[in-house]
Amino acid sequence: MALDAAEPCMDIAHLGHVELLTPKPEASLRFFVDVMGMTESGRQGDSVFLRGFDDYETYSLQLTASTTSGLGHAAFRARSPQALARRVAALRADGVAVTAVEGSFGHGTGWRFHDPDGHVFELYYETQWYEAPPAQRPALKNQAQRFPARGVNVRRLDHFNCLAVDVRACRKFFERNLGLRLTERIVLDSGEEAGMWLTATNKSYDFAFTKEAHGVAGRFHHVTFALDSREAILQAADVFLEHGVFIETGPHKHAVQQTFFLYVYEPGGNRVEVANAGARLVLAPDWRPITWTEAERRKGQAWGLKTIESFHTHGTPPLPGEKA
Amino acid sequence: MALDAAEPCMDIAHLGHVELLTPKPEASLRFFVDVMGMTESGRQGDSVFLRGFDDYETYSLQLTASTTSGLGHAAFRARSPQALARRVAALRADGVAVTAVEGSFGHGTGWRFHDPDGHVFELYYETQWYEAPPAQRPALKNQAQRFPARGVNVRRLDHFNCLAVDVRACRKFFERNLGLRLTERIVLDSGEEAGMWLTATNKSYDFAFTKEAHGVAGRFHHVTFALDSREAILQAADVFLEHGVFIETGPHKHAVQQTFFLYVYEPGGNRVEVANAGARLVLAPDWRPITWTEAERRKGQAWGLKTIESFHTHGTPPLPGEKA
Amino acid sequence: MALDAAEPCMDIAHLGHVELLTPKPEASLRFFVDVMGMTESGRQGDSVFLRGFDDYETYSLQLTASTTSGLGHAAFRARSPQALARRVAALRADGVAVTAVEGSFGHGTGWRFHDPDGHVFELYYETQWYEAPPAQRPALKNQAQRFPARGVNVRRLDHFNCLAVDVRACRKFFERNLGLRLTERIVLDSGEEAGMWLTATNKSYDFAFTKEAHGVAGRFHHVTFALDSREAILQAADVFLEHGVFIETGPHKHAVQQTFFLYVYEPGGNRVEVANAGARLVLAPDWRPITWTEAERRKGQAWGLKTIESFHTHGTPPLPGEKA
Amino acid sequence: MALDAAEPCMDIAHLGHVELLTPKPEASLRFFVDVMGMTESGRQGDSVFLRGFDDYETYSLQLTASTTSGLGHAAFRARSPQALARRVAALRADGVAVTAVEGSFGHGTGWRFHDPDGHVFELYYETQWYEAPPAQRPALKNQAQRFPARGVNVRRLDHFNCLAVDVRACRKFFERNLGLRLTERIVLDSGEEAGMWLTATNKSYDFAFTKEAHGVAGRFHHVTFALDSREAILQAADVFLEHGVFIETGPHKHAVQQTFFLYVYEPGGNRVEVANAGARLVLAPDWRPITWTEAERRKGQAWGLKTIESFHTHGTPPLPGEKA
Repeated sequence: MALDAAEPCMDIAHLGHVELLTPKPEASLRFFVDVMGMTESGRQGDSVFLRGFDDYETYSLQLTASTTSGLGHAAFRARSPQALARRVAALRADGVAVTAVEGSFGHGTGWRFHDPDGHVFELYYETQWYEAPPAQRPALKNQAQRFPARGVNVRRLDHFNCLAVDVRACRKFFERNLGLRLTERIVLDSGEEAGMWLTATNKSYDFAFTKEAHGVAGRFHHVTFALDSREAILQAADVFLEHGVFIETGPHKHAVQQTFFLYVYEPGGNRVEVANAGARLVLAPDWRPITWTEAERRKGQAWGLKTIESFHTHGTPPLPGEKA
Repeated sequence: MALDAAEPCMDIAHLGHVELLTPKPEASLRFFVDVMGMTESGRQGDSVFLRGFDDYETYSLQLTASTTSGLGHAAFRARSPQALARRVAALRADGVAVTAVEGSFGHGTGWRFHDPDGHVFELYYETQWYEAPPAQRPALKNQAQRFPARGVNVRRLDHFNCLAVDVRACRKFFERNLGLRLTERIVLDSGEEAGMWLTATNKSYDFAFTKEAHGVAGRFHHVTFALDSREAILQAADVFLEHGVFIETGPHKHAVQQTFFLYVYEPGGNRVEVANAGARLVLAPDWRPITWTEAERRKGQAWGLKTIESFHTHGTPPLPGEKA
Repeated sequence: MALDAAEPCMDIAHLGHVELLTPKPEASLRFFVDVMGMTESGRQGDSVFLRGFDDYETYSLQLTASTTSGLGHAAFRARSPQALARRVAALRADGVAVTAVEGSFGHGTGWRFHDPDGHVFELYYETQWYEAPPAQRPALKNQAQRFPARGVNVRRLDHFNCLAVDVRACRKFFERNLGLRLTERIVLDSGEEAGMWLTATNKSYDFAFTKEAHGVAGRFHHVTFALDSREAILQAADVFLEHGVFIETGPHKHAVQQTFFLYVYEPGGNRVEVANAGARLVLAPDWRPITWTEAERRKGQAWGLKTIESFHTHGTPPLPGEKA
Repeated sequence: MALDAAEPCMDIAHLGHVELLTPKPEASLRFFVDVMGMTESGRQGDSVFLRGFDDYETYSLQLTASTTSGLGHAAFRARSPQALARRVAALRADGVAVTAVEGSFGHGTGWRFHDPDGHVFELYYETQWYEAPPAQRPALKNQAQRFPARGVNVRRLDHFNCLAVDVRACRKFFERNLGLRLTERIVLDSGEEAGMWLTATNKSYDFAFTKEAHGVAGRFHHVTFALDSREAILQAADVFLEHGVFIETGPHKHAVQQTFFLYVYEPGGNRVEVANAGARLVLAPDWRPITWTEAERRKGQAWGLKTIESFHTHGTPPLPGEKA
């Protein structure tokens, strides 16, 4: 049967991993292991690979030593080899340069390309499932790894957020080439898009792009890991407090997507969120995107908390002259 | 591009609604509205239609007056008109009688058929999104309906469970004709399948079939509604207790699927579950089904609770001579 | 045996009830019943009496129609008739005018007096236990009333907070005459006390006094009701949002006392808090009071939230010329 | 003023610590540190001293190497030196042998005696407050120790439970000599008391005695530590599961006292409970004890769970011939 152009495209299965750059690799590693409760599952070159206890692949976070902070790349797993081939072909047909990358830790050939704002994305299908060593074997066989009971107990990678100079152009790029679906967005009174949330799954978003305040391309806003409950996020706030981790804002509930959020900075300078997005799912295959106006955004977050200034301005890598 | 036979089929979007039969329609209605915190969204013939506050369609539960309890039918929404056509064609090619049903409340043409055990299933695509009347309008526009703050506050329909004489035959039927994916199953030492869990989404299951103990075809085990958290399920237990609702077992955590569960009987005699399956998602497009053995099942539920006898034997409609 | 002066005095058992004045009695009543989930247990004169499901006495909130908002009085139950007599004698020996009030709804003779800032306090011992009418009878006999499953489900009165021009004088007054114990306080760099928290129980406070910003005596800051968990408070935030209730700040965690808080305004203009103070108890009979400095207070609440301006300035009744 | 005989006596402030005997001291220590998340605060002789992060004294659990399991002793802190003297005098006036014990770790002179069933109790007043070493210093100065974020994160000691051949005699002993207050009890149809719960605080009990099934005096049922929420107890169940700790029953809610419970066995054979008793407080100074009948107990726990047999029969030390 032919894949009809009018049909929703499901070629992308889910967000697979995010690579963070850090100028303080050892301190960042300690943060993700000791405070976030993640597990190291490998090293290669300048990178350490980390995972939450419910990530089924070998890792979901690649931490790479660098001269600065920011996003290395974000990688999505295709639904099948054929789906991967279709998406690579679609990107190339759209005039996008796509490069095959071999030898990546934990997965097969990666197909890399830049989005219109310059961030590096990667698609892959072949992957290595996590095989827990004895000390990490879970009691229940339907779980990838034992529950760590350490730090904030990250369950899995949830999503990430990039900054972009032209949010609308980026949205259309991902809709057109990857078949991702828009669930919510912010449209300014001027008509400019200031934020957009895209999904490949029944989660209401797998990543977001929000407006870059300084006109600098390719910057990163945050990466988010899922915890088990809102109570777990409140407990996480205490854990961050005890460890002297800078809490930027939260815990609170976003009006957009209703995510229960908490934002901190890891030692390398990247913003990291822990969130609970579990109860709410987008099941409609033809979900009607929600558009938030400037007036609506001025109401603040769900329960009235005003969005703090740094949330609109701080990205990684830092701007020239900005403190890391 | 052609849809390769080796590719996962995503034609079914999600479980849409379940029809429960009840010999006590008024008492059942009061239970679902007052205790479950659901909202009536319409009536037609002998049926009342009900919804959780986060169900995006008009309803997720059809309550139909009948001489007995049991499942009327279960309906799944297809991902597109083309997907719907493909599934109907596939069923017919498999020798299954499929009948078009018009005039259903809240959705377009339904295509009905019987599974190998005799339960009635229905596929549809066209649907009516819920439009909240003023009293039900939510504060946040990305939510279908305001939070009820009444009873146990059902968020949405989650899944259902049928009994079947031949579980394996049913599983193969749904995999073959609907493209649903198996995530977990129970296989007895004899090789017989005693349980199977299928999904169309990133939820780890949308319905389950477990072994019928009495050799009677077409019976029903339970329907499940999602609450917001495990804490909400503990609170629900108190609410059921206060209303004199019979609690069969729970709250506890299933080893299979790790669902945090609580089972009660509604006044019409049907088993109803409230569950929190939110934190755990199946993101792998090629998920490797978990098989539980008899020895593993003998360990009881996740934290050692022994599964109570009625859970293996009680279904609806009741057996001849059995008390409703 | 003689009661040694050096011994802690336990004559006050607990906070019994708070009387709130409201210029919008009908709207305030609807708020406390429909949104807060409290139960009306009686009427007398211009007052309606309300209770949480776990309050053992007939009521914990007296709502009195008035020309303005503010505190009517706060009442404490003594531990015994002898303890009551001792406290009245102590007050009088300290030169405080104490007046007997008869005919109060739900309790015996009340002994009323003014604190140094002019708020009205009352002591009593004889009380009427709540006897639940059939519709309110709980399933478990160790609970005063059935769980309401409505609105935010107030469990019980927790504490209240007055404003005072001279916080230290008020603290010494209550320590000296009622034998209440100080658990925490705020001392400004100038040496002035800006806040103090006193307890009669193992709760870390039963009431607090904070500095009045405008030099006006006798004003009220808020009354607080206990909910069952932090998750319940997050859910309460959604309930307030759905009902259009103004949320001033929270949910968040105070550094002082570690209370997990959420502040709203009821229709009559009084600030109302829902809080979860359950996990933390003060068991030490000789608890060493915690003193917070200005520098420490500048760090904001526990997780860094800045305390909003109105929290320091808004009290009831409103100042002349201030909007209610 | 004289302390009237009719007045409630508040001479006992709270349960201070419990000494557990263990034939496997190293394994027991690892359990309490790694799985329970407690902190070692000292060693003396054959004992290791442990604490929860919110215990204000140096320790709340003494773990003593022994040939068997069971209770070493249970210690209560008096409210003042005078209160301690009064209680010792009252015990002696009642014909009880009371022995002064000097040199105890972490507290001053202890006054030891046997209850009618032979368990060893101790009273003391002088105590050593916990002074956190740098690595254990909390971010908030009103907390004794930093939150561990390890294992099940015990907050504090909550209560313990002894078995007794004559429960009523024990109850009267504690009421008469220590002034403890009865909050709930079980009375069999024969008139025999099968359980009683006593408190010195606003917690609804500080310890319980239940009927010994085998007529052997001096045996122990369990010790209980408080966690922060019901969600924490559900998470604890997973932590115990991952560590291979035997879960006897729970998580579930007792009808008696409404405690949300989870019982496991530590490696030395003693039953250990984690519970959340926070939301419910007994504030009434003249609380009317609840009496549960045999018929009421037959209904099982709050949500219908049947009490498992070992809960009625297993105590420590094990009976002769019984497996540890």
